[in-house]
Order: sequence, then structure tokens, then C-alpha cells
Amino acid sequence: MTSSFHGMWAELRPIGRDSGSGGYRRYAWTGADTDCRAWFQAQAESRGLVYELDRNGNQWAWLGDPAAGDAVVTGSHLDSVPDGGAFDGPLGVVSSFAALDELRARGAAPAKPLAIVNFGDEEGARFGLACVGSRLTAGQLSAGKARELRDGDGVTLAQAMERAGHDPEAIGPDPERLARIGAFVELHVEQGRALADTPHAVGVASAIWPHGRWRFDFHGEANHAGTTRLEDRRDPMLTYANTVLAARKKARLAGALATFGKVGVEPNGVNAIASLVRGWLDSRAADEATLAEVVGEIERAAVERGERDGVRVEVTRESFTPVVEFAHGLRDELVKLLGEVPVLPTGAGHDAGILSEAVPTAMLFVRNPTGVSHSPAETATEDDCLAGVTALADVLEGLACR
Amino acid sequence: MTSSFHGMWAELRPIGRDSGSGGYRRYAWTGADTDCRAWFQAQAESRGLVYELDRNGNQWAWLGDPAAGDAVVTGSHLDSVPDGGAFDGPLGVVSSFAALDELRARGAAPAKPLAIVNFGDEEGARFGLACVGSRLTAGQLSAGKARELRDGDGVTLAQAMERAGHDPEAIGPDPERLARIGAFVELHVEQGRALADTPHAVGVASAIWPHGRWRFDFHGEANHAGTTRLEDRRDPMLTYANTVLAARKKARLAGALATFGKVGVEPNGVNAIASLVRGWLDSRAADEATLAEVVGEIERAAVERGERDGVRVEVTRESFTPVVEFAHGLRDELVKLLGEVPVLPTGAGHDAGILSEAVPTAMLFVRNPTGVSHSPAETATEDDCLAGVTALADVLEGLACR
Repeated sequence: MTSSFHGMWAELRPIGRDSGSGGYRRYAWTGADTDCRAWFQAQAESRGLVYELDRNGNQWAWLGDPAAGDAVVTGSHLDSVPDGGAFDGPLGVVSSFAALDELRARGAAPAKPLAIVNFGDEEGARFGLACVGSRLTAGQLSAGKARELRDGDGVTLAQAMERAGHDPEAIGPDPERLARIGAFVELHVEQGRALADTPHAVGVASAIWPHGRWRFDFHGEANHAGTTRLEDRRDPMLTYANTVLAARKKARLAGALATFGKVGVEPNGVNAIASLVRGWLDSRAADEATLAEVVGEIERAAVERGERDGVRVEVTRESFTPVVEFAHGLRDELVKLLGEVPVLPTGAGHDAGILSEAVPTAMLFVRNPTGVSHSPAETATEDDCLAGVTALADVLEGLACR
Repeated sequence: MTSSFHGMWAELRPIGRDSGSGGYRRYAWTGADTDCRAWFQAQAESRGLVYELDRNGNQWAWLGDPAAGDAVVTGSHLDSVPDGGAFDGPLGVVSSFAALDELRARGAAPAKPLAIVNFGDEEGARFGLACVGSRLTAGQLSAGKARELRDGDGVTLAQAMERAGHDPEAIGPDPERLARIGAFVELHVEQGRALADTPHAVGVASAIWPHGRWRFDFHGEANHAGTTRLEDRRDPMLTYANTVLAARKKARLAGALATFGKVGVEPNGVNAIASLVRGWLDSRAADEATLAEVVGEIERAAVERGERDGVRVEVTRESFTPVVEFAHGLRDELVKLLGEVPVLPTGAGHDAGILSEAVPTAMLFVRNPTGVSHSPAETATEDDCLAGVTALADVLEGLACR
């Protein structure tokens, strides 16, 4: 079988790719984003699908009458993190069109409306908040707050939308659109290695782990690195360093994740003991109780070491996303349709997680041999991508054509 | 006795002070620097001293004929680190003028030329290299290299000099000026607590510890903080953190100093495992062998941990200043002139360290109750400052008036 996958993949490949890093810079409402959107619209129209751009900048391609209700929707997003990989997002959108092509090749006749969606601004790379398109639609983000989001240059989301030709006054909840959807299935490259060591190219999501970010401020005392005796120091870098190692250990013992990936130092001079070290903790766990326990233990370790170092520790929770448990009925149906298939949780947020509050939602993961994502090294084999297309076609046929 | 110290101190106090931080921002060739220089010139002229600005931007105030040779010179600098304290530098300059006033009040008649100097750009806060004025004069920095130094806005030292009315083409070695000097004595606030726990307000320097800065590059692999299993990570933040703690331990065991005060992280995102952590090590010790041993041990600890973390460690020595042993004869003379006085080393660089290669050089330290320096909290008591003036007057009288 020849899949339409390859041609679409080749068309998308150059859009928003940085030739230096080899990574993608497809940020919401930029030129690269516009190019991706034009590609989506062309795909829809070349298949005779009804194209719609909704009030929140999400793109839809309909087969059948949207007003009929109980629609089966699939899709993902086309935007990227800074220097992101080619698969996170686009794999889901390209596979959706390819799966539809496969359904048609099989001669399967949908009994329900089918749609493919490209959610806008999933990564939040430009305005700092993820899943803006789906959040607005689901009423999880107010239009006023969204319009005031700012990028690194101080441009608001409203201004960026306006410049890209989208009316920022139109954005807001879209319950009628959600009410048309009977099931949403998002296919996504796996962002870990849970499938890598199995014989399975495709898995089904069970849940999205609860996750949050906490800012740890370590307050010490600026002083001269060349003249201040070790015993006279209040060096917050020591407390920070110890906390980084403690976080790893606590996470390991609890089977959770804890990462310090962002740091700010004042005054950040080579010959100056820092007055302030600010470290951001990203932590995730299978359930909220475990997450709370891990973060609590990290905070206790920080405060304890801070007392030894003469460093005051202040912890601020900057964001928190509760656990998302995907609809059990839909998940079981997918497992039945796909045969023997691993069911696995993920630590990453997705539009599917946002929609799951309003609509029965499921996810398919395609095997990632290295587990790397959010990086140009992100990959999946061609065979596994095609297996993903087949699995998605099986799911769409099972959900919409029987 | 009423000292002229107070009046001068009050005049300098507001110049370049940031009302927010309470710290000083007197950077080379800025408006605040110009104001400090105008103050110096006015002090020289009000005392009938002969004022000179040398080719490298250092200011001199002469009592007696410079050409006579074997001059006794004292002084320090007026510029500051970012948000520095009021004492580091200015205490030496103000005390020099006050000591001269005291000599005159005593009726002491100098048998040799006496001079007070304000060395330009000692802290290197703007152009990243310390002691530019004295280095140029002593031939330890080439004029061409100096002119190309750049500040954070990309302005070269040559451009900055030109804008401040100083000819950048004139800079360079000044051996004739150095040849006139028989002895240089710099008074400075102590930057540690070696005197704090003694009954002595003033100490004499024995040496400046050898010191250097090393850049540690920890190369890991960027990845998603929410989906990458702990065992699949190559997280350079862990290696960095372990190295920070190892540095402290190795330094403590060797009686040395080791500090990580500056860090850079890529991509520095909250939900991204870092691909690169860059940490700068500042290390100093009483002798060069100990320093080499400490830095070697820190590097070994970093590499060892890096192997566990899958992180490659690269170490680059960015600068190194050998030990400065102040002239023993001059030091012994100061101790004889001042009576029972502690003799102590320091970890900080000074213009005196630069000059010591060409000229017999000594330093006096004034007690610092907290040891804090390079910070608005830097301080010395009024009594100790006046004791410093008296000690400096005793030294000048002993060296120049007998």
C-alpha cells in the first residue's frame, strides 16, 4: 500500500525550519504558522472536505454534516516549541489526513460526521501558555486574559492575531462546536521510551500525569568570591545545588519526575557570591498525592540545607494541572479495535487533555526510538509512522463507520 | 584632632549611588566616573598639589618635583563594581588626601616627592578586565587589546574614552612614570574578616593569593522534562550541581576558596532538560600548587559525575593571576613604623598587585566588621577609618620625611 503520508510529510518539512539548528520555529501567528495553516487548508480542499476556521483560530476539515452531531474528530497541532522536532504535533495532523485517505481506499462509508482539526498555539512557545486554541474553545481560558498574553517583544496575543488577519474580539468559548463532537482521538509521537523497548509501534494513552511548576528562590548574601571566608558565606548556589540533587533522588524513590531546567542568578558575576539563585522545578507524578509528596520533600530538603547555608528558601507554585484520566469507555474501545496494544500514561500536556473535560477523548502514541522530543533529534521510523496511520484508520473506521 | 576625612567622604557619597539598591555604579568613563575624577582634581588643586592626568587615564596629585625620583606614592581607585559599596577604592583615595593633611598638620617636611593616585578602571565592571589603568601603565596589557575591549552594549574602550574626552591613541606603557616611584602604598578596606576578630583596626598585606577563573561546560541532551524517564536522561544540571558541592568541599579541605557565582543554561526552559549548563569557577589559594590541586580535584569530580550522568565536561581556564608577594623590605618597614600589626594575605586583586612587578609595593587594610564587600553592606567604622588615616600618615612620614 502506498500512503499519502510521504508526500504531505515532505511538503511540511521545510516550513519554519531553522537551517542552523535543524529545529522548527513554528510559533503561533507568525509567518511559519501562516504557512502551516495554508497547507492545512489546501489539504482539506484538495480532498473535498469542508474547511472552517473557528473563532479561536483552530482549523477544521469536515467530511459529512457537522450539524448532524456525534462527530468523530481527530487531529493535533502544527506549531512547535523553539527548535522543536518535526513530529510533535504534525505527525498527528498528517496521519489524520492519511488515515482518512486510507478509509476511502478501503471503501469504508462513515455513518457519522468525521473531522480533522489543527488546534492553534498548542505549545505556547510565543505567549507562554500552552493549548491556547483548545483552552479558549473549552472555556478554560477567558478571552480577556488571552488577549493580554504577551510575547518576548511585548506584542499581545490580540495584536499578533490582528496582524495575522484574525479578529481577536471574536475569541471565546465555543460550546456549540464542542457539542457536535462525539469522540476526539489525538495521535501523537511518544515523548518517552515506554514503547521503545516493546514490539509495539502504537500505544493507547491511559492518563496525563498531574504536573506543575514551582519557583524556588534561594536568598543568600552577595559578597566577594576572593576574600570571603567559606565559613562567613551565605551562598545560595550551594543550597540550590543540593536541592537539584535532592529533587532527582526524591523523584526516583517515588517513581515520579522532577527537573530543574531553568535558573536565574543575581548578580551572576564570576567573582561574586550570588545574592539570589532562582530555580524552577518541573515535577510530575502518576497521581496528585504522590506529586504533592515529592514536591513537599524537595521543599523540606531545600529549607533544611538552607538553614545550614544561612540561605532563606521561598517556594511559589506558578502553575498546576490536575490529572487527566481519559474516558475509560473510549479507551477500552480503542484497545478492542487495535488488538493487543500497550496502555500507558504520559507526563506531557496535550489539547486532548483540555478537551477531555467536555468530550470523550483518547490518544494514540507512536513509538519514539530514543524518546527524545522538543528537540531536532525527535524521531520515529517510517514504518512506525505508517503503523500509526493504519491504527488511526482502524480507530476511525471502528468509531465512525459501523 | 579633626580630620579632613569626613568632609571628603560626604562629598563623594552621592556620586554614582543608586537610590534603589543603595549601591554604587561608578563605571569607567561614565558620567559618575567623570564626577569622581572632577572631585579628585578639585582635591588636588585645593591643596596646591600639581595635578596630572596620565596617558592611561590615571590621575596624579604631586607634592614636590616628580622628576626628582624615588617618590612615595599612595592612593587607590574611585570606580566600583555593580552596586558596590562605598569603601572599596574610595577609602584609599580619601585616606590619602586626609593623611597628607595630617602630615602637614604635624609639620612634617617631605624629603622626597609625594603623590596621590587614582587608578582608572580598577574593577573592570564595564569592560570585563580589572586594573586596566595600572595594567596599561605597567605594560601588562597592550594598548591595541585594551582599545578593543567592549562593554555590554558593544561600545569599545576606545570609543568610551573618546566620548569622555580622553585620547585612546595615547594609551600604552609608561615606564618613565613608574621609574619615578620609589614606593607605592595602597590603603584598602579589608574584604574579609581576618581583622574583625582582632583588636587591630589596621593590618599590613603579605601577599595576594594566586587566583583564576575556569569555565566548566556541562554538555547533556535537551529533552522534555515531562516525558523523559529519569534513566533516559543526560541532564547536565545534575553534574553541575554535584560539581558546585564538590568545589566547596575540596576548597574547605585545602584551606582554599572556590565559588560558582555565574551560570548560563541552554535552553533554560522550565519544562526542558538542559542541553548545556555553563558554570564559572572562581578559585584562589595561598600558593599556586594548592590552587592547581584544588582545581584539578574539582575537575576530576566533575568528570567522574559526568560519566554517571552521560554528560561531557569541558574545562577552559579563562584567566590566571600568579601569586603576588609584596616586597618584603617595604612590608617590614611598614610593620616597624606601625608597631604591633597583623600581617595578612588577601584573595582580591588590586592595582598594588599590578604595580608590585615594577615597584616596591605595600598595602594597608582597614578592618571590616562584617567582611562584606562588593555590596552596599560593605562598611568600616568611623574610628577604624580614622585609624587608617593615622597609620597611612605614619607610613608616609616614615618613608618620605626622614
